[in-house]
Amino acid sequence: MALYVYKFGGTSVGTVERIKVVAEKVKKAHDAGDQIVVVVSAMSGETNRLVGLAKEMQAQPTERELDVLLSTGEQVTIALLCMALHNVGCEASSYTGSQVKILTDSSFTKARIRDIESAKVHADLNAGKVVVVAGFQGVDELGNITTLGRGGSDTTAVALAAALKADECHIYTDVDGVYTTDPRVEPKARKLDKITFEEMLELASLGSKVLQIRSVEFAGKYNVALRVLSSFTEGKGTLITYEESQMESALISGIAFNRDEAKLTITGVPDLPGIAFKILGPIADANIEVDMIVQNIADDETTDFTFTVHRNDYQKAKALLENICTELGARKVTGDDNIVKVSIVGVGMRSHAGIASTMFKALADERINIRMIATSEIKISVVVDEKYLELAVRVLHSAFNLDKQANV
Amino acid sequence: MALYVYKFGGTSVGTVERIKVVAEKVKKAHDAGDQIVVVVSAMSGETNRLVGLAKEMQAQPTERELDVLLSTGEQVTIALLCMALHNVGCEASSYTGSQVKILTDSSFTKARIRDIESAKVHADLNAGKVVVVAGFQGVDELGNITTLGRGGSDTTAVALAAALKADECHIYTDVDGVYTTDPRVEPKARKLDKITFEEMLELASLGSKVLQIRSVEFAGKYNVALRVLSSFTEGKGTLITYEESQMESALISGIAFNRDEAKLTITGVPDLPGIAFKILGPIADANIEVDMIVQNIADDETTDFTFTVHRNDYQKAKALLENICTELGARKVTGDDNIVKVSIVGVGMRSHAGIASTMFKALADERINIRMIATSEIKISVVVDEKYLELAVRVLHSAFNLDKQANV
Repeated sequence: MALYVYKFGGTSVGTVERIKVVAEKVKKAHDAGDQIVVVVSAMSGETNRLVGLAKEMQAQPTERELDVLLSTGEQVTIALLCMALHNVGCEASSYTGSQVKILTDSSFTKARIRDIESAKVHADLNAGKVVVVAGFQGVDELGNITTLGRGGSDTTAVALAAALKADECHIYTDVDGVYTTDPRVEPKARKLDKITFEEMLELASLGSKVLQIRSVEFAGKYNVALRVLSSFTEGKGTLITYEESQMESALISGIAFNRDEAKLTITGVPDLPGIAFKILGPIADANIEVDMIVQNIADDETTDFTFTVHRNDYQKAKALLENICTELGARKVTGDDNIVKVSIVGVGMRSHAGIASTMFKALADERINIRMIATSEIKISVVVDEKYLELAVRVLHSAFNLDKQANV
Repeated sequence: MALYVYKFGGTSVGTVERIKVVAEKVKKAHDAGDQIVVVVSAMSGETNRLVGLAKEMQAQPTERELDVLLSTGEQVTIALLCMALHNVGCEASSYTGSQVKILTDSSFTKARIRDIESAKVHADLNAGKVVVVAGFQGVDELGNITTLGRGGSDTTAVALAAALKADECHIYTDVDGVYTTDPRVEPKARKLDKITFEEMLELASLGSKVLQIRSVEFAGKYNVALRVLSSFTEGKGTLITYEESQMESALISGIAFNRDEAKLTITGVPDLPGIAFKILGPIADANIEVDMIVQNIADDETTDFTFTVHRNDYQKAKALLENICTELGARKVTGDDNIVKVSIVGVGMRSHAGIASTMFKALADERINIRMIATSEIKISVVVDEKYLELAVRVLHSAFNLDKQANV
C-alpha cells in the first residue's frame, strides 16, 4: 500500500464531466489499495470570474478580502469532487485549507506555507477514505484565509506530500510528461522517464511551463518524488527526483528555449569598480528583469557590457541605457530584439568535459552564429538570431542523441 | 451610539451595483456613529447555480459536501461587500461562519446554532470597523462547515444580534415593512409601525412571507428587537417586538390568507376513541401536511371529520381517505379544492370579546359562506370558497378599521 498525493489543475476539473473523469481515476487507484489524497484547483475560468467581480467593486481589491473571495473557487471543486466520488461509491471527505489545516504566514495573495497539520488527513486515510483538499489556500495564525499565489495548488500538493510522507506526488496536467524539448519545434522530442529537480528547475525557468518553479524547489527541498502526468491519457509521465547513479550516463536531459528575448550592449564603458551596478541599477529600478549578463574587457581597457531583457521591455531599457551611457561617458548603446535563447540542460555536464564544444560545433556546422554565451553548472545557454531557433533546437537535439533513450 | 445588525438578502446583494448600494447605506449609518454588523446572503441565483452543479455530480448530494459547496455563496458576498466598503473609505472586515465563529450542531443542511463567539466582532467594532458576516453558515465542533437551511441568513442575523446584545436587528428585504394584509388584494392595506412577535408568527405562517418563522421565534426567545425594512427605499419599516401596553388598543393587526388550500371531509365515522389518529395517521405517513382540523358530532352519534391540506396534495389525500373510509365503515368522503383560508390575527383578541362575531357578521353581510372555522388565542381562521378571497379580505380589513392608524 502506497500513499499518493494527486493534484489536478483547473483544466482537469473544468467541467462537471471532467470532475467525473477525475473521480474515476481516483477511485481506480483507491480500489487498487492505495491511499489517495487529492488536491484540486478552482474550475478553469472561475478564478478569473471572481477577480473580475472584485475589480468591479474596487480597482485595487483589498488583498485580505481577495483571498476570502478567491478561496471559494477551490472550495467549490472539493465539494463537487467528493460528490462525484460518493456517486461512484468511493468514500471521501473534503477539506478547505483552514480545515486541514495548512498554516501560512499572513502575506495575503502570496502566502508561504509554515506548517501542515496532517492528523485529520491520516485519520481519514486510515479509515479508508479518499481525502480531497483545496489547493492554493491556507489560514494564518489569526484564522484569516490566505492564498498562495500563482501555481499555489502545486505547492499545496507538494507540501502535503512532504507532511504526509507520501510515496509520490502526482501532478496531473494537460501534457503527459516532461520532454527533451518542445515537440512543436522538434517532433523527435522524447518524453523523459526521469529528470532531476535541478534539471527541472532549469528547464522550467527556461520556458517549459509544466510545473511551477516554486513547487519543484519545495519538492527538492523536502525530497518529495514528483511525477508529471496527463489527466486525459494513461501513462507513467515523468518522475522528478534526486540524481541517481544510473542517471549519470545521460549527458543532457533537455533543450529549453526562450523566444521573447532582446539584448542590449553598452560599449566603451570606463572599467571602474561598481560599473555593473551603475548600469543595472536604473534598469532594476524600472522593474525590468534582466536575464543573461556578460561583461568583456575590450582592447582599450574599457568594458563592453551586454545583457538580455524580455522583448516587451526592450524599448524602455534601451532609452534608460542611453541616459546611462551619457552619464558614464561610455561609447555607445546597441541592441537587438530579434534574438532567442537556447539552452542545453543536464546534470551530466558536471562530470563530462567537452559538452560545450559539442554544442558549439553543432551550431557552427549549420553556420548558426552565437551572439552570447552563458554557463552554469548544469546549463549552457547561447543567444542566436531568432530565425535560427528551430534549427538550433533540432541540431542540438540530434547532437546529444536526445531522440534516443539515454540509459537503457 | 447604538449597535445594529443589518441583514441583506440575496436580492439586495444580487448584483455588483446593488452591493455598492448596500455599502453606501452601511457607510451612512457607520458615519453617523453607530456600530454596524452586516449579515449577507449569497447573491441571488448563486445558491441555485451551486445546487445545480451538485445535482449533476450526485442525484442526492452528500449533505456534508453540499454545505461545503453552498457556503461559498455567502463567502463571495462578504468579500465583495468589504471591497465595496473599502472603496467608499469605510473600514470593514469579513468573517465566514467558521471564522466568527458560529458554532452549530452537526445536522448538515439544517444545522441549529448552539453558540456564537463574539469576541472578534466586538474587537473589530470597537476598533471602528464594520463587520461583515456570512449568513446561513456555521461550523460544528469538529470543524465541519454547516448551513442553517432556508432563511438561515435571517437566523444568523438574529442570533448575532442576541449574542452581541444589539439594539436592533434590521432585516432588509424588497418590501418596506409588514402590512395589515397583502396590498395586491386590498390596496388600502397599511404598513404597520409595530407588531408583536406572536402576531408576526401567525402572519408569517399564514403566508406573509416577509420573514422566516424560525428567525422570528429566535428573536422572540432572545428578545431581539427586529425591524423589517426595504433595501431599496428609505423608511422606518416595521418593528417586531414584545407586546407593549400601548399596543392593546389595536384589536387586529393583520389579515393573512392562504390560496392553495383544499378540504376533505369524511362523514358518518363511528365515534370511537382513536378515530382521529386512524384518519390522520396514514395521511401523515404519506408526508402530507394537514393544516386545519375540525371534528363535529352528527345527530346519529357518528362523527364528521374535516381537515385541510395543500392543494397539491388533494388527490393523493383523497385517495388515501377513501381507503380509510372503507376500513372504518364510515359513510363517505367529500372534498373541495376550490377553497381558501382567511385569518385575522391580533393580540388584542385576548382581552376583547366580540371579535369573532364582528368577523362573522362582516362576512355574512356580503353573503360569504363560511365552510370551516378554527381559532387560536390570537387568530381566527375561516375557510371560504376561493372566489370570495379578495372580497373577504377587503371586507374584514374595513370591518376592523385596518386602513386607519390604530393607536395614535
